[in-house]
Amino acid sequence: MSAVSSIRDYIQTQALRVEHELERSIPQEWSIPAALRESMMYSLMAGGKRLRPILVLASAEALGGRAEDAMPVALAVEMIHTYSLIHDDLPAMDNDDFRRGKPTNHKVYGEAMAILAGDALLTHAFYTIVQAARKQGVSGGTIADIVEDLARLSGAPGMVGGQAADMQGEQGVTKLEELDYIHLHKTSDLIVFSLKAGARIAGATAEQLAALDRFGTCIGLAFQIQDDILDLVGDEQKLGKPVQSDVKQQKVTYPYFIGIEASQAKIEQLTREARDAVTGAGIPYPERLLQLADYLMKRDH
Amino acid sequence: MSAVSSIRDYIQTQALRVEHELERSIPQEWSIPAALRESMMYSLMAGGKRLRPILVLASAEALGGRAEDAMPVALAVEMIHTYSLIHDDLPAMDNDDFRRGKPTNHKVYGEAMAILAGDALLTHAFYTIVQAARKQGVSGGTIADIVEDLARLSGAPGMVGGQAADMQGEQGVTKLEELDYIHLHKTSDLIVFSLKAGARIAGATAEQLAALDRFGTCIGLAFQIQDDILDLVGDEQKLGKPVQSDVKQQKVTYPYFIGIEASQAKIEQLTREARDAVTGAGIPYPERLLQLADYLMKRDH
Repeated sequence: MSAVSSIRDYIQTQALRVEHELERSIPQEWSIPAALRESMMYSLMAGGKRLRPILVLASAEALGGRAEDAMPVALAVEMIHTYSLIHDDLPAMDNDDFRRGKPTNHKVYGEAMAILAGDALLTHAFYTIVQAARKQGVSGGTIADIVEDLARLSGAPGMVGGQAADMQGEQGVTKLEELDYIHLHKTSDLIVFSLKAGARIAGATAEQLAALDRFGTCIGLAFQIQDDILDLVGDEQKLGKPVQSDVKQQKVTYPYFIGIEASQAKIEQLTREARDAVTGAGIPYPERLLQLADYLMKRDH
Repeated sequence: MSAVSSIRDYIQTQALRVEHELERSIPQEWSIPAALRESMMYSLMAGGKRLRPILVLASAEALGGRAEDAMPVALAVEMIHTYSLIHDDLPAMDNDDFRRGKPTNHKVYGEAMAILAGDALLTHAFYTIVQAARKQGVSGGTIADIVEDLARLSGAPGMVGGQAADMQGEQGVTKLEELDYIHLHKTSDLIVFSLKAGARIAGATAEQLAALDRFGTCIGLAFQIQDDILDLVGDEQKLGKPVQSDVKQQKVTYPYFIGIEASQAKIEQLTREARDAVTGAGIPYPERLLQLADYLMKRDH
């Protein structure tokens, strides 16, 4: 079996495990308005690559830890990613009617419920980390470290900051540095969190966390540049969304600044940097992480 | 000095301390888009009673703890309260143009930035608890307990659930029980969190936490019924918002179901229940909490 086909199997297997756990991630005994619960579950179970939770699990395994122990954190990062998509799709933001070929949350449940479902998923991510991680005997100190990382990397100085810069960018990003700020925070920060959190569960050292931080920053930026390219030349069927939406929304992208070829070269350079970061930095089993990085750069959706 | 005037002084003093700390609650060294930081600070510093943070501090003191040690949690609960107001005021929700006599966040910064400022404040509340509480040597286990309480009481089974029920209620709340669900979750849950979190910082026992839970549930519901009454017969100047907005929005209220007199009687009954909960339940210094409860019931804004 080639490395690529085996990584495809790995991704498929882990994605199914994550989805099985996501199904049960909101306690049935909680009394929650039915429409709110439905709206949360609609977007949580709407598919997608499950890239971030898979990175959490793979990172724990790369340090010799067990994927099961990192599962609560994997669910939490998918909740954060899902809330950000629900809010990004709102009419006041990107105003998207479809996501992964399905109507967006607000098209099904209305804007008010979509805003609340996003708020609830964001909040539930923190509940999931603490409550489930504690069950598995993760120390309070490690839980606090993970909560702090998530709050910083998904908050104002992280993902939300990137989204805010992106919104304003529509009024004109003039420098590649500004686009890098958007990509790094909107995309890389949550990938960095995923890798560090999985590693923390497995008892990572400061050196290992720093290596995974650099690895995540590189593949996150490469992933986003690939997104820019796919939006320009991708296959609508595979993407599940119309191409050239960036162009239509007049969003500047990497190809806009440096062209498609240079963008592809940048992706290859970042992939090499990512590889260097985790090889020979005391990461005992980096193979899966490296395969995931390669897979991400070769993806067509 | 009468008890009431002294509690007014206490509230004023504590509110100023909270506001002084709120001013500095978002690290200056963080690189955040200027408009996002401004939008967050605009609502965070827009005044208000600072009731919830004051309850955090008073609860810590009621158990013989130091208010300073509970300050990070006090800031966090105000961030959660503030984000909920920003999102509730959005056009898709209550569509309010003014709050405390000032233009609402989305009227100043636009809907997209208001949504993101709310998301960022929600997220920053968790950062503030962990990062600042840890500085003060609060144990990881206690931090985890507080984060879990906040995520549950402000999330889908708590405040957001109450808000969702309120939204749907506009399509017709037919039973007082449904209105109680809305009031208990939309208002009481965050008050209960404030009391329990302050107490946890001061090392509360399970019995003490249960007593404060009951105290908070009672004063929270009483507070909300008082809100319903003030919306009907209050003074626009003092309230800083137009009265009868509930009537205009066809929101059902306690007076709608049982009339103003019975609503006032219900407030008095809840205040007595609150008093019973914290007297003789092993709360060493309950006076401030009792004065705060009385003050809340006598307020005119």
